[in-house]
Amino acid sequence: MTNRVRIIEVGPRDGLQNEKQVVTTATKLGLIERLAKAGLRHIEATSFVSPKWVPQMADHAEIMAGLPALPGVHYPVLTPNLKGYEAAVAAGAKEVAVFAAASEAFSQKNINCSIAESIARFEPVFAAAAKDGVRVRGYVSCVVACPYEGPVAPAKVAEVAERLRALGSYEVSLGDTIGTGTPASVLRMLEAVAARVPLAELAGHFHDTYGMGVANVHASYQFGLRCFDSSVAGLGGCPYAKGATGNVATEDVVYLLNGLGADTGIDLDALVDAGAWISEALGRPTGSRVARALLARRSA
Amino acid sequence: MTNRVRIIEVGPRDGLQNEKQVVTTATKLGLIERLAKAGLRHIEATSFVSPKWVPQMADHAEIMAGLPALPGVHYPVLTPNLKGYEAAVAAGAKEVAVFAAASEAFSQKNINCSIAESIARFEPVFAAAAKDGVRVRGYVSCVVACPYEGPVAPAKVAEVAERLRALGSYEVSLGDTIGTGTPASVLRMLEAVAARVPLAELAGHFHDTYGMGVANVHASYQFGLRCFDSSVAGLGGCPYAKGATGNVATEDVVYLLNGLGADTGIDLDALVDAGAWISEALGRPTGSRVARALLARRSA
Repeated sequence: MTNRVRIIEVGPRDGLQNEKQVVTTATKLGLIERLAKAGLRHIEATSFVSPKWVPQMADHAEIMAGLPALPGVHYPVLTPNLKGYEAAVAAGAKEVAVFAAASEAFSQKNINCSIAESIARFEPVFAAAAKDGVRVRGYVSCVVACPYEGPVAPAKVAEVAERLRALGSYEVSLGDTIGTGTPASVLRMLEAVAARVPLAELAGHFHDTYGMGVANVHASYQFGLRCFDSSVAGLGGCPYAKGATGNVATEDVVYLLNGLGADTGIDLDALVDAGAWISEALGRPTGSRVARALLARRSA
Repeated sequence: MTNRVRIIEVGPRDGLQNEKQVVTTATKLGLIERLAKAGLRHIEATSFVSPKWVPQMADHAEIMAGLPALPGVHYPVLTPNLKGYEAAVAAGAKEVAVFAAASEAFSQKNINCSIAESIARFEPVFAAAAKDGVRVRGYVSCVVACPYEGPVAPAKVAEVAERLRALGSYEVSLGDTIGTGTPASVLRMLEAVAARVPLAELAGHFHDTYGMGVANVHASYQFGLRCFDSSVAGLGGCPYAKGATGNVATEDVVYLLNGLGADTGIDLDALVDAGAWISEALGRPTGSRVARALLARRSA
């Protein structure tokens, strides 16, 4: 089993999207540049959703135009439908991400349609992407539990993940959207999904709302997962528990993986710098415990 | 393997001792009472060290006099030497804790003597305790790394733990004092110690300074450990990284263990109440992510 781990940095999109204040395009690009310099090779850059729904991502075309062109660095963008996909590709996107929930109630409340309808909506995106040579990543949300209907059956997660793969996702990211999972429930889910989608095409997307993010990454790594989504400085809150933490912090994940002897290719000190920089720009404390400890040690 | 886990609540001692402001005796006793009502059966109540060194614990005799007499609830107290032991027993202590470091540099800097000298100092405590029928718990600090000399050899930890057991400790608590351990280094250490001290007589004492506390509890639980020290609301900071987190929060540990199907006998909601109460009394945010998320959900 390889010890190489890919980290998908979701701070500039999933993270900032859930921060309340408006962030300037220059700040977003400054963050992305710092992340790329720290060794991140996959940075979710923006979202091509309507500015009406997500005003924070209204500058998606400017972001795409300003991305640092660095060899080997990928900038996936979120696309909710064919219109978003076309705008993304027109703006230069080479990789997009689509999403579905593993919970019917969440799908209805979040995007106002059933899981099946949401996936059907992505079929033309997959078709166009295949033609355009654009890679598509699939997200599944609520893989452990749903804020509206409670525990989600692992078989349901497996079904949605398998469907996204069949349509053409090169990878499916499994999101514990409300962060209630522990290693036990995460492993039950992973076992069910891995029976239908190769482990090498799966990613773990954990939230730290209940402080379980790092433990879930560790348990998944032990299980064989080698790709994780995370957010520098733990950017992004949790819309289902105001004031609580959202995405697990990239610094904490990298620190853990370094300790486990995994190779992420990321320079932890430069990553801490990037997190400190954006936290200061946002005027909020970092959500990364590793960053807090390392910054305290530096200033001592 | 049993799924019963004992939690040793160290907030009122190890936690408050590292909080800067003076906490009144009434507040300490209010916290202890709430913890006992939440189902904690082992609550480290105070420390019989000189008020010159630890002013926060100067009210140790008053604390002992005010402890709620509840069946099955134990109140160990920290004792640095025979004089402290005698004062503790005179004040009514039925269980004491002694401590040694696994790092020579830490022992010298922290208590100004070698590890061997520090253990020799406890020999009369063990002798008196055996005569008095007082239980003695041993703490080993720096079991993964030392703030002064870096990584600590697992064999050294095993040696100190074995010595504390041979002298009469009914349990040895293994403390990752600076919180730099990850599941890999923690397991290397545990394997070495468990080769010389029965697992059933070991406890894990993890700090969350680098966000690894919960993951280390999980890895240790998987390894077979069934006793953990933790601090409600994550009370206590880290003297080696100002502003950083110290003890792993009891709420987070209980949430994890509940998820793993372990039985702690603790009422998580009542525990969250106890943590919210002391955090408000101290005028500081809780250090527990579980508490933050559950309190946010309650107020929603």
